[in-house]
Amino acid sequence: MGNYRIAVLPGDGIGKEVTKGAVEVLKAIETRFGHHFEFAYGWIGGAAVDQKGTPLPEETLALCRESDAVLLGAVGGPKWDQHPPHLRPERGLLQIRKEMNLFANLRPVKFYDSLTDSSPLKQEVIQGVDLVIVRELTGGLYFGKPSGRMVENGEEKAVDTLLYKKEEIKRIVKVAFELARKRKKKVTSVDKANVLSSSRMWREIAEEVAQEFPDVTLEHMLVDNAAMQLIRSPQQFDVVVTENMFGDILSDEASMLTGSLGMLPSASLSASGPSLYEPIHGSAPDIAGQNKANPIAAILSAAMMLRLSFGLSKEAEAVEKAVQQVLAAGLRTADIAQKGQRVVSTDEMVNEIKTAI
Amino acid sequence: MGNYRIAVLPGDGIGKEVTKGAVEVLKAIETRFGHHFEFAYGWIGGAAVDQKGTPLPEETLALCRESDAVLLGAVGGPKWDQHPPHLRPERGLLQIRKEMNLFANLRPVKFYDSLTDSSPLKQEVIQGVDLVIVRELTGGLYFGKPSGRMVENGEEKAVDTLLYKKEEIKRIVKVAFELARKRKKKVTSVDKANVLSSSRMWREIAEEVAQEFPDVTLEHMLVDNAAMQLIRSPQQFDVVVTENMFGDILSDEASMLTGSLGMLPSASLSASGPSLYEPIHGSAPDIAGQNKANPIAAILSAAMMLRLSFGLSKEAEAVEKAVQQVLAAGLRTADIAQKGQRVVSTDEMVNEIKTAI
Ligand SMILES: CC(C)[C@H](C(=O)O)[C@@H](O)C(=O)O
Ligand SMILES: CC(C)[C@H](C(=O)O)[C@@H](O)C(=O)O
Repeated sequence: MGNYRIAVLPGDGIGKEVTKGAVEVLKAIETRFGHHFEFAYGWIGGAAVDQKGTPLPEETLALCRESDAVLLGAVGGPKWDQHPPHLRPERGLLQIRKEMNLFANLRPVKFYDSLTDSSPLKQEVIQGVDLVIVRELTGGLYFGKPSGRMVENGEEKAVDTLLYKKEEIKRIVKVAFELARKRKKKVTSVDKANVLSSSRMWREIAEEVAQEFPDVTLEHMLVDNAAMQLIRSPQQFDVVVTENMFGDILSDEASMLTGSLGMLPSASLSASGPSLYEPIHGSAPDIAGQNKANPIAAILSAAMMLRLSFGLSKEAEAVEKAVQQVLAAGLRTADIAQKGQRVVSTDEMVNEIKTAI
Repeated sequence: MGNYRIAVLPGDGIGKEVTKGAVEVLKAIETRFGHHFEFAYGWIGGAAVDQKGTPLPEETLALCRESDAVLLGAVGGPKWDQHPPHLRPERGLLQIRKEMNLFANLRPVKFYDSLTDSSPLKQEVIQGVDLVIVRELTGGLYFGKPSGRMVENGEEKAVDTLLYKKEEIKRIVKVAFELARKRKKKVTSVDKANVLSSSRMWREIAEEVAQEFPDVTLEHMLVDNAAMQLIRSPQQFDVVVTENMFGDILSDEASMLTGSLGMLPSASLSASGPSLYEPIHGSAPDIAGQNKANPIAAILSAAMMLRLSFGLSKEAEAVEKAVQQVLAAGLRTADIAQKGQRVVSTDEMVNEIKTAI
């Protein structure tokens, strides 16, 4: 019988529809298990630029800090693409990560039997895939200084900086090992140690941390090879840990494996306060407002919240089971539907999942 | 009836076997078309470390500079993995790229009808794929300064720098447009403009260059999305142009599409002198010296040399046709063989291709 405050940041595009669905599912959990969830809404992204003149208003940040967890939809859209960098929706996302210290981004990729037809990969390649990408989220190329443009001796240049402190690497690698310990006990640390200094430090620290986890196997893999292996034999992976930019690329690549981009949740864990949960898909402006979006990624993100932020494992499982049940029954939103299958709207999908709970 | 000087740098592992095969094929071309090729050999990589104490000896560089083109095998191996950075095989590769100004790395990825079974992707996804990744090869994170380790206020840090000058971006984007003009007239420029300053400059310059090529379509794609799209619908791509690190990751990913890593050639074009040709696969220490390696990537790299460095299109086609003919006849090295197919050795494969020429 817990009391939990959840900050909901719908953001842009289908972010609004899918968070609405996730909130409804959380309310079904509330009723069934007798908890009390308090939802408070905030602006972020393009919507925040329009309403408040900035992609991450102070009051949104304050709201999040006072909450027990944050549920985010998605940000971005063509409407704001021509804005200067500080008024772009993505800036809001980067800022909230940095401000709330959301250093560990967990992206599970799981094979769904019912969805093999949606994958571009052959069934025998993806059968049984069950991996988590642990992406460092508040360091590296995304935040290093200097980052900007300059003119030197009449030459225009641009620079970005890949910077890591030892402690930043240590804490993310630890998260990966702790996770692996509860899973298949294997960590693949991805770097580019044959070229980058930061990667050589990364590799050393990974070795150091591994000493504390003698029950977990550590393997190093170069990022270019990892990009190949993810397609060639994804079953070899359990927990993959890597720096921010590599993680951005590899996790999007991995999301394609199971053909279920619209179903993949993520958690961004904080070093110091509430964590944030969001679907890994974007704001999909092309289908926004049409009641077509797949709400499952947002709903499974809510399930991660239940488990990781509130410690409510039974409740998380109830959500996950409901999702599986509905899929097994053949319900599909357009993105995961194959010929001959019944296509349902966002609302219908949400309702069926609620009913299953 | 041309006279051409070719520097051959076998390097390590299977690099030796596959360059040997490519040289034999070039000799068959020499005979059939009445050219004169002069081959001169140099050390690079781990072999150079062992023989000369450095992964790129001065004499190798001098040899390459005096040649009309360079044919490289592969570098690296576990033997040198514990060496300090300046004595690692990869350093030789990075140095030769920088010293010879090999700024444009062209990596074609082509669907082979006879090889669909080797691909992890479904046939309908890869059918007809014909793309080229144009990777910037002498700038970005690979070469930017500062790059190294430091201690600040008692904290250990590591840094790498992603730096581009305007001119460096301009020339590589131009290569992509010129190539697209001779192909399907579409350039996809891949960046991370929603986060990186260097990517925002990249995008601006791509737009600028596009003005000079009104017959070619330019499209921008974020690198994370590109990593997805390459698996989801690779047929959409013609020429993909991107910076060094993104190109490293995406081209290895793309090489998996057709299940034919052992068949993919590459060209590294110089801004100022001879160009370099190499298979994109590595030194494969596990099968080195066993007469098992697939020589086709090296042989097709030699074909690219004939076409791009010597302007010998007919000769290049003769090589490419011979390869196709041998594949169509069902000959396979182990890496691309399916159950029930006759597996041939490196030497046999080379001989059959020579015969077909
Ligand atoms: C929107 C963008 C800034 C963001 C990122 O690059 O981190 C997104 O791609 C993601 O992966 O969450
Ligand atoms: C060996 C390594 C330094 C090299 C690179 O990263 O460029 C290789 O991966 C390649 O793609 O040619």
